[in-house]
Amino acid sequence: MKTISENTCFDGTQGVYSHASTACDGDMTFGLFLPAEAKEEKVPLLWFLSGLTCTHENAMTKAAAQGWAAEHGIALVFPDTSPRGEGVADHDDFDLGQGAGFYVNATQDPWAKHYKMWDYIADELPALLAEKFAIDPERQGITGHSMGGHGALTLAMTLPGRYRSVSAFSPISNPIDSDWGRKQFTAYLGEDESTWAKHDASKLMLEKGFDGPILIDTGTKDQFIDLLRPETLADAISKRRQQATFRLQPGYDHSYFFVSTFIEDHIAFHAEALWS
Amino acid sequence: MKTISENTCFDGTQGVYSHASTACDGDMTFGLFLPAEAKEEKVPLLWFLSGLTCTHENAMTKAAAQGWAAEHGIALVFPDTSPRGEGVADHDDFDLGQGAGFYVNATQDPWAKHYKMWDYIADELPALLAEKFAIDPERQGITGHSMGGHGALTLAMTLPGRYRSVSAFSPISNPIDSDWGRKQFTAYLGEDESTWAKHDASKLMLEKGFDGPILIDTGTKDQFIDLLRPETLADAISKRRQQATFRLQPGYDHSYFFVSTFIEDHIAFHAEALWS
Repeated sequence: MKTISENTCFDGTQGVYSHASTACDGDMTFGLFLPAEAKEEKVPLLWFLSGLTCTHENAMTKAAAQGWAAEHGIALVFPDTSPRGEGVADHDDFDLGQGAGFYVNATQDPWAKHYKMWDYIADELPALLAEKFAIDPERQGITGHSMGGHGALTLAMTLPGRYRSVSAFSPISNPIDSDWGRKQFTAYLGEDESTWAKHDASKLMLEKGFDGPILIDTGTKDQFIDLLRPETLADAISKRRQQATFRLQPGYDHSYFFVSTFIEDHIAFHAEALWS
Repeated sequence: MKTISENTCFDGTQGVYSHASTACDGDMTFGLFLPAEAKEEKVPLLWFLSGLTCTHENAMTKAAAQGWAAEHGIALVFPDTSPRGEGVADHDDFDLGQGAGFYVNATQDPWAKHYKMWDYIADELPALLAEKFAIDPERQGITGHSMGGHGALTLAMTLPGRYRSVSAFSPISNPIDSDWGRKQFTAYLGEDESTWAKHDASKLMLEKGFDGPILIDTGTKDQFIDLLRPETLADAISKRRQQATFRLQPGYDHSYFFVSTFIEDHIAFHAEALWS
């Protein structure tokens, strides 16, 4: 593992690190905020999975999350959204290839060699973090934005016991019925749609649900709301009788100005679960 | 004036606007955050002047300022740091030309035609804001980062009565004795150093001071601290018996991770002056 940068931030450390990833067969970069408490003891960890086009850097610099994480003594990890670099397959569209890993393990060429974001987020990166940093693997929560909200919800429902709490900002909620999903799943997973359902938050909600609290925020003026399909997830939450807070925020759009407005709520929500 | 974007943010609006600037002889872009209160009444305005290489966008997306401005019912304006575009003189160095206007009126070629950032910030932009938005010109404060801290301090001391309060993050404090200053003043103002002194915060502090409170934060690990020369300003503040809080923050560097850590303090500091 290589240290790219470390900046003091809210009396803790905002670091950026890279490492050779087995899952993604190449170097991966992530941001990690450690609160001051991590100098003395292991701290809870909140995952922030980012959306289309993002690297590890966007949420790290724009979500205004560190101050609230510091207040609650929680670490934040900001993984990249795909493998990157020369030799890694890519596509001219912004919503396919690099920056658009969709948190799945690709099985189709040319993606299968590097695009194993599920394994990376579910297995490899958490193991690395627990080994190298003062992180308590027994206390993890997960959140994300847009494609990252999809990742957070699907990981949380698929790995019961892993995360104590899950939240999302404007998540892609029903990708198997959206152009943000069908296109990427076809490319990464192939034409057989039976392989897609385990990556659809609304489907997973009906089938499994989540053993813990859920918080979801979407803006009423989100310019991509037709692609996000929050109504399908709201329906599934209701049918499942899932413990959840599902909010539509008046006037907000899809931007980080929306995320930064409500990040305080989300971190407080996770803190309650992580410190209980 | 043209609206580039408007995003709902902390129940207010984060806008980006462009306009034809007479001072800079070309189009200029700025960010403006208006809190919810501005829908009903005129609100106080806090200027945020940015540092080298920045546009209107850096502080607007990275300083995490809007939440605190919303809490205190204060507008924030994020001007650009220089004129820009084709036909505007530039230089290969990052610290001269576009992105490095230094908040002076250039008198030397090739800069004199467009580089009138002093007039732009002191006269043209405040007039435009007061005309187009629910801003109370009687209640203004000013802050800035690095080169923008230099701008905030020199404007505040030169325009008594304009700003009720001034603060700065890691300001360039003594440019006439620093490579961040001598180089640019030579280019923009010419070899005659007598024209430089009115743009040196430490000199102005000795000669004029500021009729109101001052707050200055600099990180002890600031990688540019030798160029900033905070010691000269601290000396001048002490000799002047100026009302001021001058802080060196342990471990912090020059980045926006530093700014975002202390922006809450700075906005609360200005709010106290602006709402009294």
